[in-house]
Amino acid sequence: MKNQLNQVNFFIPIQNRILLVEEKMREQPDGHHPDLFSALGHLLASGGKRVRPAVALLTGGMYGADQDRLVTLGAAIELLHTATLVHDDLIDGALFRRGIATLNARWSPAATVLTGDYVFARAAKLAAETDSIEVMHLFSETLATIVNGELTQMFTRRGMVSREDYYQRIYAKTASMFELATTAAALLSPANDEVIGVAHQIGNDIGMAFQIVDDVLDFTGEQTTVGKPVASDLRQGLITLPTLYYFEAHPEDPDLRALLDGQYYSEERIERLVGDIRKSGSIDQSMDEARKYIQCALDSLQQQPECSERYALEDLTRYIVERTL
Amino acid sequence: MKNQLNQVNFFIPIQNRILLVEEKMREQPDGHHPDLFSALGHLLASGGKRVRPAVALLTGGMYGADQDRLVTLGAAIELLHTATLVHDDLIDGALFRRGIATLNARWSPAATVLTGDYVFARAAKLAAETDSIEVMHLFSETLATIVNGELTQMFTRRGMVSREDYYQRIYAKTASMFELATTAAALLSPANDEVIGVAHQIGNDIGMAFQIVDDVLDFTGEQTTVGKPVASDLRQGLITLPTLYYFEAHPEDPDLRALLDGQYYSEERIERLVGDIRKSGSIDQSMDEARKYIQCALDSLQQQPECSERYALEDLTRYIVERTL
Repeated sequence: MKNQLNQVNFFIPIQNRILLVEEKMREQPDGHHPDLFSALGHLLASGGKRVRPAVALLTGGMYGADQDRLVTLGAAIELLHTATLVHDDLIDGALFRRGIATLNARWSPAATVLTGDYVFARAAKLAAETDSIEVMHLFSETLATIVNGELTQMFTRRGMVSREDYYQRIYAKTASMFELATTAAALLSPANDEVIGVAHQIGNDIGMAFQIVDDVLDFTGEQTTVGKPVASDLRQGLITLPTLYYFEAHPEDPDLRALLDGQYYSEERIERLVGDIRKSGSIDQSMDEARKYIQCALDSLQQQPECSERYALEDLTRYIVERTL
Repeated sequence: MKNQLNQVNFFIPIQNRILLVEEKMREQPDGHHPDLFSALGHLLASGGKRVRPAVALLTGGMYGADQDRLVTLGAAIELLHTATLVHDDLIDGALFRRGIATLNARWSPAATVLTGDYVFARAAKLAAETDSIEVMHLFSETLATIVNGELTQMFTRRGMVSREDYYQRIYAKTASMFELATTAAALLSPANDEVIGVAHQIGNDIGMAFQIVDDVLDFTGEQTTVGKPVASDLRQGLITLPTLYYFEAHPEDPDLRALLDGQYYSEERIERLVGDIRKSGSIDQSMDEARKYIQCALDSLQQQPECSERYALEDLTRYIVERTL
């Protein structure tokens, strides 16, 4: 995925600045424990597509934001994202992410908690270095939204959820950070409040689509591609959009009922259910939802200033639904 | 301790504002999970002397800082402190703090990690609400310092440490946050850079003394007073100033040697060693160190503007070493 993305068009206008983001994320303040940097290096090496920094750089570029501050913002956002993944992996007991051992698999829980905290601190430091108090406000609100979403998910993991609950969850989990990327980038530019509002909506639309497609890929992807078992969410009792649509069409499906009642561990039932969901129309219905968000984002983008960054951001936006092909 | 402190002089000039700090810490943003607020309420109810907000309020008051922003700062600092305690208790597996069940004792590790993260987010949000980018910088640097200190301690917990290592550790653990309280408070006032530098040093001195006294109390206090077993640090293999002085005077003590070699679990040896340290001059030597810091802070304070806040801050500073009596 990483290699593919590096070859696609939308990275071209920001190639050099993405490298600066990488450097910025790896900066080593004096006097901090060397193991922290090997941990941080390991976390950053385990990939990630740097989609969030790319969105920030392109949005800011489109509105004429200061390039240095955009690079700092991109690094802050990717580190915030990384920190939430460290604590997530610890909470889920995940041993691999993107095919690479998690910190959790190598370090004690205590060291993992603290490393996550350290990455939060680094992210907050970089956010402060954008020298924008509005960006700091957004940044801390986004962190609260993400953590509140995770806790809500933890307290309500079992059982069916409503469409509204699902949208709230993916907003907190993913869209909030894309919204941060576009809004903060616009805030670092001379854009007026109306434009900042548009940027905010574009980030939201891109982020919602991104997570819906991720949730679809969890069903349609192969284990080797996504790095975790097919339907890993469903196996953990986490209901995503394809299952929601499937449930609406087949409310009496005995395998789904069994799963909702807490009988998670019948592999035969799970596999049959996953097969049924994949064959059903709910995958297409979910992709249609994602495409609606993408279309909204594209409609907004087409009214923004014409420039290479805008075209690249349109490419990136389209790519979010195309990556399922 | 809490009741005693509420009765001492130095709370008088800030009585009302400390209550506003309490309110601010408990504010409930819309849409966040109710269990988060019960957890936060539990954390805040389990006491804490609110010494850090008091230091911030008094320092800011002395220099004429805006009162609303000082209250916000005080709440941000106490929440940052609270968040680090949540993750600390999780890491140490502590079931009680100040005689009250920790979150860790009541919730799963996953919920505890996330609640700590949430309290960090709330702290960062309040720090941003001071509307000072310098305060945000300091705030995120302090968080990085604290976490780096905890990780360093974790990686080097066993064995003797140097005096320098000890001072670095207590700086990271405690003094950095007092330094944040005084420096950020001064930054919110019209004080010039020289005054801000003095405030910074006062916070450092108060914080260093505070932790040394805490480390002495760990030896001299009774379990009922401090809420944990006597010499709990030593029992965990953590070397503090009294043990350092004792080691310098008795490098061949067989009980200390055994402990340093990792033979932690001989209760008889530990008790004998603790008794020997308590009887030795190392408790007085440690208190002398604390008094030196207190004297430096008082010398600096006496050159600051005469006002009720300054006198109260002097009382608070003196109280730090007097509380052992």
